[in-house]
Amino acid sequence: MLSVEEALNRILGALQPVGAETVALSEGWGRVLASPVLARLTQPPADVSAMDGYAVRAADATEGARLTVIGAAPAGHPFAGKIGPGQAVRIFTGAVLPAGADGILLQEDAEASGDEVAAKEAVQPGRWIRRAGLDFQLGEELLPAGRKLTARDIGLAAAANHPWLGVHRAPRIGILATGDEISLPGEPLAPGGIVSSNAHALAALVRSAGGAPLILPIAPDDAPAIAATARAARGCDLLVTTGGASVGEHDLVQKALGPEGFALDFWKIAMRPGKPLIWGRLGDTPLLGLPGNPVSSLVCGIVFLWPAIAALGGRPGLSPPVRRAILGAPLAGNDRRADYLRASLSTDAGGGWIATAFPRQDSSMLKTMARADALLLRQPHAPPLEAGETVDVLILAELGV
Amino acid sequence: MLSVEEALNRILGALQPVGAETVALSEGWGRVLASPVLARLTQPPADVSAMDGYAVRAADATEGARLTVIGAAPAGHPFAGKIGPGQAVRIFTGAVLPAGADGILLQEDAEASGDEVAAKEAVQPGRWIRRAGLDFQLGEELLPAGRKLTARDIGLAAAANHPWLGVHRAPRIGILATGDEISLPGEPLAPGGIVSSNAHALAALVRSAGGAPLILPIAPDDAPAIAATARAARGCDLLVTTGGASVGEHDLVQKALGPEGFALDFWKIAMRPGKPLIWGRLGDTPLLGLPGNPVSSLVCGIVFLWPAIAALGGRPGLSPPVRRAILGAPLAGNDRRADYLRASLSTDAGGGWIATAFPRQDSSMLKTMARADALLLRQPHAPPLEAGETVDVLILAELGV
Repeated sequence: MLSVEEALNRILGALQPVGAETVALSEGWGRVLASPVLARLTQPPADVSAMDGYAVRAADATEGARLTVIGAAPAGHPFAGKIGPGQAVRIFTGAVLPAGADGILLQEDAEASGDEVAAKEAVQPGRWIRRAGLDFQLGEELLPAGRKLTARDIGLAAAANHPWLGVHRAPRIGILATGDEISLPGEPLAPGGIVSSNAHALAALVRSAGGAPLILPIAPDDAPAIAATARAARGCDLLVTTGGASVGEHDLVQKALGPEGFALDFWKIAMRPGKPLIWGRLGDTPLLGLPGNPVSSLVCGIVFLWPAIAALGGRPGLSPPVRRAILGAPLAGNDRRADYLRASLSTDAGGGWIATAFPRQDSSMLKTMARADALLLRQPHAPPLEAGETVDVLILAELGV
Repeated sequence: MLSVEEALNRILGALQPVGAETVALSEGWGRVLASPVLARLTQPPADVSAMDGYAVRAADATEGARLTVIGAAPAGHPFAGKIGPGQAVRIFTGAVLPAGADGILLQEDAEASGDEVAAKEAVQPGRWIRRAGLDFQLGEELLPAGRKLTARDIGLAAAANHPWLGVHRAPRIGILATGDEISLPGEPLAPGGIVSSNAHALAALVRSAGGAPLILPIAPDDAPAIAATARAARGCDLLVTTGGASVGEHDLVQKALGPEGFALDFWKIAMRPGKPLIWGRLGDTPLLGLPGNPVSSLVCGIVFLWPAIAALGGRPGLSPPVRRAILGAPLAGNDRRADYLRASLSTDAGGGWIATAFPRQDSSMLKTMARADALLLRQPHAPPLEAGETVDVLILAELGV
């Protein structure tokens, strides 16, 4: 059985980022840059006022001085003339500083009457002036390739004059659920049957990681049917199967795909939940086979599929961040498989995380998984721990999963 | 000047959640439930096997016992008969336990030959059986109204047999940027002009909070033009303006909208960046006027607009979570305005956050805002702090902003 780390390395090592597409700036939020965003202009383009008030020659604007107001410079309407001795120009935040001025008399320090203004406070040269290029300079790299764009980044790309962005297209992830026992939600259920949940949960997980899911029709436990459905997914960047991967006679995925040219890399990992995990290649399409248990499928989805989609989508090496937490209740020692316990989180007085594993960890309990705030990580052979000791957790809200 | 808390209370107190719409389960990820999801079935529907192996009468399956295999029960194909003394049925994970059986002989503890199987280990009654309803019971509330649906929730709703979900529709947020000096990205720039970034950054912020943005045409600094553009936004759940809200002569938003029936609630808050913040109502439409500085606009968007959209979208009382961090560099004392410093985050050896404010905090510096990991909160009149003291932060990645 492979370790989780080795399995993840083998998966990520086999994946290349998908290509780029051009999207409008307004569609760029949450997408991953395929090429850096460089500044197409200098911001601010010239020295500008940081406040409302009067542009002045600082040497003239001593306390009590009276200046002649010769014009106004609202933002977007630069003053065309030059400020001479004893003169001032009304100015507003963001407006270009008129020639000759080297200071700003703040509005609250000014007393206007007619075409004159009196300084109640002396003006310091350079104060309340934003210099050209304070924010960024023409040609400067503002946002690197590989960055997932935030709302702030969208604002910055706009300010740098980009109506279009080059981003990685969303990796197309085929999802193939197998099993005679499963039906789509709302459709007739066979006796002893259950509703298919894995494909829908995984499709949402794919979205959370930046991928575009393609839910394939459910394949019954029948090798030709599985093969036919998988064939339809060859154009995907990754094919995910769920179910049919256990050690029983119903381990059909490998049997079905072998004649289709499936090349297996590995299929067992030292992990709970989720020992049976298939990784290989179906023709040109990487294939990740997840377990059929809903919790196992989601946990393996978080640990392997989420970083795989990130890598395909232009963020290689990005894994769900591991955080530290204090243990809220004791834990028994672990066996040789890495364990991902469903846990709730609270915060202590200092704002630190407290993680408490749910007492029952059966891999069929989807409700417990939905209510978990975190996965609590237990390394193989980890010793028993008392409450108060430190553990590693994956915080599920951070992943949008 | 109002405090941030009072301003936020007044904003949230004026908002009601928008109505519901029906979406397909596969479109439900990230949406907010308008009605709870109840279980439409019991899961598992009957006692099922948790493992691959043989269903047996535990009393018969002592160590070394040989049992007659009378049939098989794959998942989805329940065994129709009843297990009698000395009999066993081949069974697979998730399959319904045949009548008469009360234990599972694990595959790895079984030795099959012909139509017989030998037990290498004694079977304990009840072991490896998942009882009917272990995950959930018919009629049980699985997901409450107001929950933002995770990938796990989508799986749970699927398992509970819901092809459709009732969710709050996305609140429609009109965004009106004003200013003679601004142009759309890629369009010709006037002398001294800048590219409009606020509307695009705010539209992405609206998306991150679950809203649907409507970017209105840029309005010049002209009261009738602003009024006409705002009129077009009366069908929105909230109208956001940016710019035109300062204390200067170019404070046009209020002037323009007064004749349109604008009812002002407040327009100044004790906050930096962002003192000029308008809150009121234009006819039936709540109106939030944000400052024109890009950083002020985004910070006020996080502090006020984000929770306002959450409240409209069915999550009243939800604000950006405040986390604790250790200060990485000393801070001066604060004046009477709450301050939201742009800061970088790192982690200490124990995994706790270290927050370090950027040395220059000018509200025009959008690049600094884009590179920040957090806003570091400073209460009015907060004393100077040394590195190593504890501060409150808003972690921007948690908001998707």
